[in-house]
Amino acid sequence: MKAAGVIVEYNPFHNGHLYHLQQTRKETKADCIVAVMSGNFLQRGEPALVSKWTRTRMALLAGVDLVIELPYAFATQKAEIFANGAISILEALGVDEVCFGSESGDINSFLQTLQVMQTRVDEFDTYVQGFVKDGNSFPKSASKAFHALEIKEEVVDLSLPNNILGYHYVKSIHDQQAKIIPKTITRTGSNYHDEHFQSPSIASATSIRKALFSPSGTLDEIKDYIPESTYHHLVSDQLAFQHFRDWESYFQLLKYKVLSSSSAELECIYEIEEGLEHRIISQIKSAESFHAFMEGLKTKRYTWTRLQRACTHLLTNTSKKVMKDVLQEKKAHYIRLLGMSEKGRTYLQENKKKATLPIISKLSGSTNAQLELDIKASQIYNIVADEPIRSNLLHSEYATPPIQYDSVKREFSH
Amino acid sequence: MKAAGVIVEYNPFHNGHLYHLQQTRKETKADCIVAVMSGNFLQRGEPALVSKWTRTRMALLAGVDLVIELPYAFATQKAEIFANGAISILEALGVDEVCFGSESGDINSFLQTLQVMQTRVDEFDTYVQGFVKDGNSFPKSASKAFHALEIKEEVVDLSLPNNILGYHYVKSIHDQQAKIIPKTITRTGSNYHDEHFQSPSIASATSIRKALFSPSGTLDEIKDYIPESTYHHLVSDQLAFQHFRDWESYFQLLKYKVLSSSSAELECIYEIEEGLEHRIISQIKSAESFHAFMEGLKTKRYTWTRLQRACTHLLTNTSKKVMKDVLQEKKAHYIRLLGMSEKGRTYLQENKKKATLPIISKLSGSTNAQLELDIKASQIYNIVADEPIRSNLLHSEYATPPIQYDSVKREFSH
Repeated sequence: MKAAGVIVEYNPFHNGHLYHLQQTRKETKADCIVAVMSGNFLQRGEPALVSKWTRTRMALLAGVDLVIELPYAFATQKAEIFANGAISILEALGVDEVCFGSESGDINSFLQTLQVMQTRVDEFDTYVQGFVKDGNSFPKSASKAFHALEIKEEVVDLSLPNNILGYHYVKSIHDQQAKIIPKTITRTGSNYHDEHFQSPSIASATSIRKALFSPSGTLDEIKDYIPESTYHHLVSDQLAFQHFRDWESYFQLLKYKVLSSSSAELECIYEIEEGLEHRIISQIKSAESFHAFMEGLKTKRYTWTRLQRACTHLLTNTSKKVMKDVLQEKKAHYIRLLGMSEKGRTYLQENKKKATLPIISKLSGSTNAQLELDIKASQIYNIVADEPIRSNLLHSEYATPPIQYDSVKREFSH
Repeated sequence: MKAAGVIVEYNPFHNGHLYHLQQTRKETKADCIVAVMSGNFLQRGEPALVSKWTRTRMALLAGVDLVIELPYAFATQKAEIFANGAISILEALGVDEVCFGSESGDINSFLQTLQVMQTRVDEFDTYVQGFVKDGNSFPKSASKAFHALEIKEEVVDLSLPNNILGYHYVKSIHDQQAKIIPKTITRTGSNYHDEHFQSPSIASATSIRKALFSPSGTLDEIKDYIPESTYHHLVSDQLAFQHFRDWESYFQLLKYKVLSSSSAELECIYEIEEGLEHRIISQIKSAESFHAFMEGLKTKRYTWTRLQRACTHLLTNTSKKVMKDVLQEKKAHYIRLLGMSEKGRTYLQENKKKATLPIISKLSGSTNAQLELDIKASQIYNIVADEPIRSNLLHSEYATPPIQYDSVKREFSH
């Protein structure tokens, strides 16, 4: 059975994701689609709109065969670390190809870009340092440095967010000496950061979330941009519908965390660097919302995403020390199953003996520090749900087996 | 000008407190009543019903002339440390007498009890250790040990809560070689822990809070047990009325604190001893309320109060190390003014030069670790108020000068 991997967040699942899945099947001719999906906290340093379990159901309904959680230690990170985690999981499972969406759409350009970067990395670094010194953010400096190299080969524009991710997938495959073959398709219809609806059926997840959180926001508004299955799922799943979450849902907890910590304690948190703790302490007292807090915190030095990631690690009390320990090998320590169709189950049965990482389908406590971060992050994510749902969720993180999806009856069971 | 001190919590102010003030004036013939009052967290390890500012107004309306905050480091402690802090403040201000309510009502009995304890402390300690070994709580063991000594002198029953506090006031005066003269009056009409209304006009603060928090609870129900001034104040002060607080108000924050901390981090918290952190972690996941959590946590070994105090220090993230540092001298480091009448102001002017501790009327940042604990505790206490009140309160902790009370016009000003 041939398998293709996708690396996703599905926050929430929309028509652009459906297109990505369809194109992946077409390009790879795979029998089985394996999605490595961020858990409850995402790459931009945000809590997910709905929990990983609800997003797993959306993925299964749309045709994904196997959903695996990207551990917190990778999911909440810059592209390089994010890619390391995702590729290590797909490779450990023996997935044949990985297919990602990119602005470029040409896999050769990615491979050439990697080659250039491998051979001219010192030059590149010197440029980056110079641009950072001039007051540019790191991503901006990287992009400018790339231009400054004046490369003749066909390379990808690394100022575009999906190209950056794609580049790091390709680089991770190279660094990990992985056998998985990278492929890419052109993203269509919307840009990653678009806040407004552009095309008639495809919109970015950003614009969909924006519509949901607007004061007059309803599910009707986003109906054209998400598959019917997602729509029905959001409507019928009371749990998901009542608890769309964003940073504002967690702002009281974040405020409490800051006000109850000394600056020395805050400085131990991962991604809180260069005195950022003092800015956090001084801004949080008067901020009446997370958004206002972030506006107060922002400087030229830090991107919004970088600051949100620092806030995520602050919320989950993830220290520099712990993160250093769990990222030592730059690879995931396990394959955590969130959901599967019959095909996914069959694929697992065929491949589990060859898998180079332990496969976890149901937790019964943990002594793995990487997995403990996932459990902690989920428990904190679930605190803001109403009782008694909350208590169930706190328990479920341990006890929940993967969701089983019957694609003929279109039914779920645990 | 002669001054008498009282040591109080006023949670909320009621007729029993009014009686205490009247009897204090009568017994001491003082011109000025100075109250040392717990801040936002109280001796039983609970958040106060209403903030220290609202309780200061209640005290001034009822005839107190000067309200001083008992620092968090003393207010949230067992009787011995609580008394050390309160007596050190009254003594530093040069207050002539302290008058406390007790079940005993006879100051000589307290003095004799102290003498017995000073001379037979080794015997006493041996008994206590024995009773603790038999599975008794510490307060129970102390009381049983006292009986076992078979003392002939007139001594006070140290199993009664107000006698214990009184005993420690007298002991603190002795230990600190303070000049302040202790007096006591008999408490009347209710017992400290009564949960139901007993006498026609005097009820315990416990029963008043219980009535307020009952599902059908209204202010009308407690009208007979509190002075008209307190009643009108509670009714008219929207802030106070809308935000009666108890542990349930802080349970989500406590849950977050536990779920985001490792057991090693919890073990650093003051009063978390002997593996209590493991019980806390295992109980908090399924608890749907603070009360249910406490029920799950309770064992014979720990009193409810002791556990609540541990939870308070957990909520405020107060470590063993910090508490040890700030309690080194067993005395308050400052006199923090919360409110005053004209008479209180005159008394202060007459005595401030003789005061042996710095008098703080308005904070402008702090480098004193004891005071920083107060600021942190207040900020955390204020987190659960609604916006935008919350932001004001977070600021006010620094900027608020003492409340000035005009007893002729019966008006407040800042």
